[in-house]
Amino acid sequence: MNYGIGIDLGGTQIKGGFFDLKKGKMLAKDSVDSRDGDWEGNVPAFGVEARGLVDSLEKRAKKEAEIAGVSAPGLARRDGSAIASLPNRLDGLEGFVWADVLGKPGAVLNDAHAALMGELWQGGAKGLRDVVLLTLGTGVGGAIVADGKLLRGNIGRAGHLGHLSIDFHSEMRTICGAPGGLEDFVGNHNIVERTGGRFGTTLALVEAVAGGKDEEAERIWDESMRALAAAISSIANVIDPQVVLIGGGISKAWKQIEPRVSHWLDEFEWRPGGARVELRRAELGEWAGAYGAVYNATIQQGMVDE
Amino acid sequence: MNYGIGIDLGGTQIKGGFFDLKKGKMLAKDSVDSRDGDWEGNVPAFGVEARGLVDSLEKRAKKEAEIAGVSAPGLARRDGSAIASLPNRLDGLEGFVWADVLGKPGAVLNDAHAALMGELWQGGAKGLRDVVLLTLGTGVGGAIVADGKLLRGNIGRAGHLGHLSIDFHSEMRTICGAPGGLEDFVGNHNIVERTGGRFGTTLALVEAVAGGKDEEAERIWDESMRALAAAISSIANVIDPQVVLIGGGISKAWKQIEPRVSHWLDEFEWRPGGARVELRRAELGEWAGAYGAVYNATIQQGMVDE
Repeated sequence: MNYGIGIDLGGTQIKGGFFDLKKGKMLAKDSVDSRDGDWEGNVPAFGVEARGLVDSLEKRAKKEAEIAGVSAPGLARRDGSAIASLPNRLDGLEGFVWADVLGKPGAVLNDAHAALMGELWQGGAKGLRDVVLLTLGTGVGGAIVADGKLLRGNIGRAGHLGHLSIDFHSEMRTICGAPGGLEDFVGNHNIVERTGGRFGTTLALVEAVAGGKDEEAERIWDESMRALAAAISSIANVIDPQVVLIGGGISKAWKQIEPRVSHWLDEFEWRPGGARVELRRAELGEWAGAYGAVYNATIQQGMVDE
Repeated sequence: MNYGIGIDLGGTQIKGGFFDLKKGKMLAKDSVDSRDGDWEGNVPAFGVEARGLVDSLEKRAKKEAEIAGVSAPGLARRDGSAIASLPNRLDGLEGFVWADVLGKPGAVLNDAHAALMGELWQGGAKGLRDVVLLTLGTGVGGAIVADGKLLRGNIGRAGHLGHLSIDFHSEMRTICGAPGGLEDFVGNHNIVERTGGRFGTTLALVEAVAGGKDEEAERIWDESMRALAAAISSIANVIDPQVVLIGGGISKAWKQIEPRVSHWLDEFEWRPGGARVELRRAELGEWAGAYGAVYNATIQQGMVDE
């Protein structure tokens, strides 16, 4: 088994990578519009587009892929055939059997799970057996690898760390109903409300913080990093990873994240025998899902040991 | 492999059970004082007492055990030889190699981990692949079985759910440093403070609640059950078990726990496709650790599949 394709389905774009599986290298990449809501006959347009991506990637690489893995939002079936559950977005994705359309064996995986599997294979989590990923973006995503294996849980929901309640008295509810959930203190989705309308994005807030003269921005950002540190100390106590990997768009502000989270962790973290969780930036950026999609497909098809 | 012994070391008592491993039945049991702080020569007294328990159990059962597992507080070494870390209690336990004293092959496991392994083997978690245990007592203990396997984590700390931060702004710190940790809202250790001195134990509080005429008791208890429900919804989102098993002394108040936690879960829990986490009482009571100790020893010695 030499070559495979990883497809990463997002709400606006589908990204695809053609991989040398033995070397773990991406030989070619391409992306197309995901056309959320469109159909071609009885097939959702994203399926047709993904199939087109497979063909174009094989042409670019001048090689045939033996396997095609998919990363997509939602909860994946345990057998990897389809996404079982994703309300309100990407009409037609629930129950859509990817192998039928892509014409290759493979598996589909939740997008945050895929990102961590990508990092585990070729990124910042390489060689680790116990690692947790947090992606800081519109919301907060997450995934857990425990003892070398992806933690999926009973219905494929494990790792939804954005929906960890860190303030149970809060009136806020995450989109999954969690009271005072992590993503409502850190995600970009409510940054306008959290900053009283002053900032439209978290990165704009962080820029003001970096300037060193905006006390209000400083206070808001510190609250956010304190929330993140509390969640990471909970992760240490409950999941006990070696490394917490931080990715997503907001992780570009690493210089304003790492020292502040570390400061709060000095107060919150339980460090038996001096052990402390290492904070690390994710490495694969927006291509992590494609890496993870193809790597997971090789595992679920039984081709490599996890 | 037919017979084994499970030893459960606590701060005041050591309990031991003699087990028929094939039938999963406890044939004999006994307990002795753990003599915390005493030594006999260079051996901590609890080691000598545990060895005595092994001998007395074999006499009672009129059979020889081929294996002896231990449950103890603290973080266990991955190889099961000893507890690596437990500050301030049971002097001599850290690094104490159990097999040297008990004279039988075996393994030592964290006590909450052992309780869940016991429940998985012969109690309320039998046949489950994804299950979380919460023990409500002085503090709140916890353990996680994911995909049929005990989640240990990098340093054996996984499952410390009492130290999940559910109120990160709180000034309270758990004994492990977690801000606003679950056990500070539910555990018995601070019930006097939480009730303004009115109640000395959680079970006394619950009795007042059951009476139906004590509004203040009602309010305090509801706060506690709301905290527990928020933690369970976080567990559902992050660990995704089929069942959350509830044990420990406070679980005797099941009639005041189950409906109230369920009420709050109706508000907090994410239930994709209608899936909901089942709440169940633990079944083995104070003997869960002994069951889990011997069961874990059979696994760590490679005698049965997990």
